Order: sequence, then structure tokens, then C-alpha cells
Amino acid sequence: MRQIFEAELQQVGDDLTEMSRLVESAITRAGTALLEADLRLAQEVIASDKTIDAIESSLDERCVHLLAQQAPVATDLRVVVSALRMSASLERMGDLARHVAQVARGRYPAQAIVPEARDTFAKMHDAAVRVAQRTTRLLATRDLEVAEAIERDDDIIDELHQQTFATLLGPAWSGTVQEAVDVTLVGRYYERFGDHGVSVARRVTFLVTGDFPED
Amino acid sequence: MRQIFEAELQQVGDDLTEMSRLVESAITRAGTALLEADLRLAQEVIASDKTIDAIESSLDERCVHLLAQQAPVATDLRVVVSALRMSASLERMGDLARHVAQVARGRYPAQAIVPEARDTFAKMHDAAVRVAQRTTRLLATRDLEVAEAIERDDDIIDELHQQTFATLLGPAWSGTVQEAVDVTLVGRYYERFGDHGVSVARRVTFLVTGDFPED
Repeated sequence: MRQIFEAELQQVGDDLTEMSRLVESAITRAGTALLEADLRLAQEVIASDKTIDAIESSLDERCVHLLAQQAPVATDLRVVVSALRMSASLERMGDLARHVAQVARGRYPAQAIVPEARDTFAKMHDAAVRVAQRTTRLLATRDLEVAEAIERDDDIIDELHQQTFATLLGPAWSGTVQEAVDVTLVGRYYERFGDHGVSVARRVTFLVTGDFPED
Repeated sequence: MRQIFEAELQQVGDDLTEMSRLVESAITRAGTALLEADLRLAQEVIASDKTIDAIESSLDERCVHLLAQQAPVATDLRVVVSALRMSASLERMGDLARHVAQVARGRYPAQAIVPEARDTFAKMHDAAVRVAQRTTRLLATRDLEVAEAIERDDDIIDELHQQTFATLLGPAWSGTVQEAVDVTLVGRYYERFGDHGVSVARRVTFLVTGDFPED
């Protein structure tokens, strides 16, 4: 019984790591599609989001099956319930990468992001890619220093997100309304992406320490 | 054992309904705060979001406790896992109502929504309030006609959301960049609010029919 449980739990962990790897690939390509107006990359990201959704579904089914067959308690139970939560966050991160790619595709062959905001978005993108890479590492290692690094990257994204508003509302802004809408929406997508990374980081921290870190 | 389980499950259901009632109140007041530039209402919504978050936490703890103590299977298990999912959606709906209120507060004493978009937002708000009211009713009754009505309201919100872009990008637009940002963000908050209502509706439908409706 215990052996089956361990094997199933291992599979749940592997699915989470696999989802996180796909999210990492999606956000990396979405940002490049956005910053380089690369239509092919944008379309790849949009098409591949289905794979992330499919893993989420099968992971959720596996967790419910595991709860039914094994009736885990204590830490084991927390691990399964946390996996359900984390798969929802990772699925959402995939959606947000897809939304970024959709903006890139919608403006092609033009650049969605105006030159005066490009540097901010390039930095925001780098921080989001780090969040995704660290999420994969955190899921594999449960190293809490990685969880802390995710929180710091999210703070950086939030600061850069504020900078996008400063650019939009500053005296130098000369973009069109469409460009203002795109900066607003894409900034929001990156901000939410970081939030979900933090959510995963806090759930792993809770599993390791028993304490759920607050804001 | 079964009696304790039924009582606990009843409490989980009551908590969900209570969260939904608070969400209903929050989105109703947030929209009025937005459309009437009512600072007091906006502040009430922002302050009361903590209550929704607190119910979510206790509901989640109750579900984990229930899984550990009662090891439910089959339908009972689905009910508990769905409750975990629905509480996350309701918590998020509360956040989105708070975000709408924060925009109203940020622009006070000015109106955040420009006159040319006001009618669209008034309709979007009405549809969002219906989503919230119907979610409460659905949780209490599991009447699948209510679930279908939520899907229709969400379609209305999506259509109105598209209209906000038509307004922003149309020749008659004469707003400031701040006004364009506010229309973009608040439109997005309402759109996500509707999505989460649909997510709850689909989970209830799944519990009743065993089929998860797809997009």
C-alpha cells in the first residue's frame, strides 16, 4: 500500500515539475515573441498551452484517485492538497504566457510594446523567466532559498509594473491608445504571473516548514 | 461517523454560500463606488475583503481536516475537492471586486470611467452582479438552470468587454491615458470576475451530472 502511495505521489511531483518546465518554456518564448515581434514563436506558445492544461487535468484526477484509494493523513495529505493548488497556479501561469503571446500575435508585424517601455518589459520578462525557472527548481529540490528568490523576483516585477504606469502617465508618453492598452494588459499579465509563482513558493514553504508565509 | 461527516460537509457548504454572499455584496458596492465615485463605499469594499479571505482559510482547513478524519470516497470526496476549488474562485472574485473599488478610490473625487464608456460599464456591472447573485443561488440549490444563466451572463460580460476596446480604439475616444488605463484594467477585472463565476458553475454542474462542461 505504502509503496503504491509513494509511487503515485512521485508521479504527482513529476507532473508538477513537468508543468513548470512547460510554463518556463512558454513564458520564455512568449516574451521573445513579444519583444521581437516573432509570429511563429507566438503561435507555438498559443498552441502548446493545451499540453499544460492536459497535464493539470490528469494530475488533478490522480490526486482525487490518490485521496480515494489511499486516504492519506498528516503530511501526505497536505502534499496532495497542495499539489491540487499548485497545479491550478501553474495552469494559470501557462494561460498568462499565452495571453502575452496573443498580444504579440495580434500586433504582428508591428511591435506591441512601444520603444519607451521596451527596456522595462525586457527586465520584467527576465524576472518572470527567473520566477519560472526557480519554480521548476523549487518543485524538484524544495530548497527554501529558491522560494525566497522567487519572492524577490516578484518584488522586482511589481516595481517594474509600477514603472510601466510611470511611463504611460509621464510627459514623454507619445503612444497610441492601442499601445497604452497593450502596455497596461501585458504589464498586468506579467504581474499576475509573478503572483502565481509566489503562491507556489509559499505552498512549498508551508510543506517544508508548516508555516504559511504572509505578505 | 456519517453524522459528523454530514454536519461537517453542511458547514463547508454554508461557508461557500456565505463567501458567495459576501462577494455579491462586494461587487455590488464596488460597481456603485466606481460608477458614482463613492469613496465611502469603495473603502468599505476594500476593508471587507479580509473577511472573505478569512472564510476561505477556515473552509480550506475544514476540508483538509475532513479528508484526514473521514477519508471520504466517491461523490463525498468530489464534493470536498470541489469545495477547495470553488473557495479559491470565490476568494479571487472578492479580490477583483476590491480591485474595482481601488480604482474608484484612486480617482476620487473624479469619475474613473469616462462618460463614453459609462453605459457599457453599467451593463457589465449589472451582469457581474447577476453572476454573483446566481452563484449564491446555485450553491444553495444546485439548480443547473442557474448554472446555465451564469454562462450566459458571462457571455454578456465578454461581449461588453469587447465593446470597451471598441470605445477605446474608436474615433470618438477623447480620454486621457489614465482614463484609457482605467477602462482597460477595470474591464479586465470584470471579465475575470465572470470567468470565475463560470468556473464555480461548471464545478457544481460536474457534481450534479458527473460531466465537466467544456468551453
